[in-house]
Amino acid sequence: MQIFSAPNEMQQWCLEQKKQGKSIGLVPTMGYLHEGHLALVREARRRCDIVVVSVFVNPIQFNVGQDFEDYPRNLEHDSDLLEKEQADAIFAPTIKSMYPPGYNSFVEVLGEMTEKLCGASRPGHFRGVTTVVSKLFHVCLPDLAFFGQKDAQQALIIEKMVQDLNFPLSIVRVPIVRESDGLALSSRNVHLDAEQRQAALVLNRVLKEADSLIAGGEKDVTIVRSYIRRSIEAVPQARIDYAEIYRADDLGDLEKIEGRIIIALAVWFGTTRLIDNLLVEV
Amino acid sequence: MQIFSAPNEMQQWCLEQKKQGKSIGLVPTMGYLHEGHLALVREARRRCDIVVVSVFVNPIQFNVGQDFEDYPRNLEHDSDLLEKEQADAIFAPTIKSMYPPGYNSFVEVLGEMTEKLCGASRPGHFRGVTTVVSKLFHVCLPDLAFFGQKDAQQALIIEKMVQDLNFPLSIVRVPIVRESDGLALSSRNVHLDAEQRQAALVLNRVLKEADSLIAGGEKDVTIVRSYIRRSIEAVPQARIDYAEIYRADDLGDLEKIEGRIIIALAVWFGTTRLIDNLLVEV
Repeated sequence: MQIFSAPNEMQQWCLEQKKQGKSIGLVPTMGYLHEGHLALVREARRRCDIVVVSVFVNPIQFNVGQDFEDYPRNLEHDSDLLEKEQADAIFAPTIKSMYPPGYNSFVEVLGEMTEKLCGASRPGHFRGVTTVVSKLFHVCLPDLAFFGQKDAQQALIIEKMVQDLNFPLSIVRVPIVRESDGLALSSRNVHLDAEQRQAALVLNRVLKEADSLIAGGEKDVTIVRSYIRRSIEAVPQARIDYAEIYRADDLGDLEKIEGRIIIALAVWFGTTRLIDNLLVEV
Repeated sequence: MQIFSAPNEMQQWCLEQKKQGKSIGLVPTMGYLHEGHLALVREARRRCDIVVVSVFVNPIQFNVGQDFEDYPRNLEHDSDLLEKEQADAIFAPTIKSMYPPGYNSFVEVLGEMTEKLCGASRPGHFRGVTTVVSKLFHVCLPDLAFFGQKDAQQALIIEKMVQDLNFPLSIVRVPIVRESDGLALSSRNVHLDAEQRQAALVLNRVLKEADSLIAGGEKDVTIVRSYIRRSIEAVPQARIDYAEIYRADDLGDLEKIEGRIIIALAVWFGTTRLIDNLLVEV
């Protein structure tokens, strides 16, 4: 397994693989890898000749005062894990090589899809995401790029960007990986203390309960949303950022619960903000 | 020579060429081709295995009330010319296939480079340019893309975008092609009446005179700029949009005339706006 830090060297290596007729799978990550990331890597390994994993905590998708500095990092451990998964290359660039002085180009998806949910809580976040992902696509030249369903809004926005801008690649979404007790894996879970960790189980529990409500025939968005909110608010350590139900394909508003819908949650536990979601087909 | 109108078919064809190890040269145009465009095509023919010419009058780079509707078009004639130049493919998409309903993704370069000159006269123009060029790059997958020095600001912005966003390609700039009397070739010249056509010669004349002034040792930006403006204002049919002198590499302001500079002009003749420029190395 090779590790690249210079974008042009990574790009040359990927161009060389393409010349040899090999397909490339890219798994973009911010590192501090867990089983959720490894599920993406395994899917890429299964489907592509070459697997490239990028490890880059992207400063332009964090707002001032957000957890950019505190975001956990451990490239050595990540590298050990990826070696075991038989990844072919890691792309771990420096901030300066990705955003040299005078950097001034941005890619953005406008509209409801980027304005709602995390787009409302974190202004500019998705512009940072679409910009860095565009750069990673140009450097690593994937045929397939793998994204986790846990960041459902991100996956949706990137699919939209790929379609609108005609990127020559396809996005593969990989299901959420959960701990045995239901907590969705996240690099940020490491920040939770024991009590917060226990409290955070409300996310998966309330998603399942909402799923049951809907399966039982409930079509009223307000009723399901209120149920979710009350359940989360009943947990003292939890503070809701958002808890919403939208059309899954474009985050459009729903008149009633039908078709493909997404229930999306972002909840603070102390200073740690966790997200979770559930796709439901009614 | 093949003509493609569907972006995905064009992309598949280009992917196939790349698989065969062929290099691709792209010449993006808005059609109504003249010798200026053909100089780009010939340079591409000389340097690449495959030459793709895109012909697309891009609506999102025109402002409301600008000359999008009136922009001259003649695909049949363009196709005859390109056949003679031994281009391999024309990409002539419909507006709907490039911007389907719900289209919402944009690429932009921010800062002085896009705010000055044509960026000031035509708000949003360069966002439209960088967006469509990104799409064309993704569809046609060029190793080299050819742009005319006549649109100097555009070439500069696209070079910046390619560098910032790590596009896996290089930009080749091709010098301005002029009529024997010095008028820079432009598809818009067709709109000039005989008197305006004669008046428009002031552009090249004043660029040459400014060049002489500078060669004679003039270092004062204000003096050279005033000279240029007065000369243009002396022509009754001419109305200045801008006439400026900046650093050539980033359109930064100059304290005095030294290094690589650009003299950039945009002047109205009746309802037709023409641009011209000169690079000077002092």
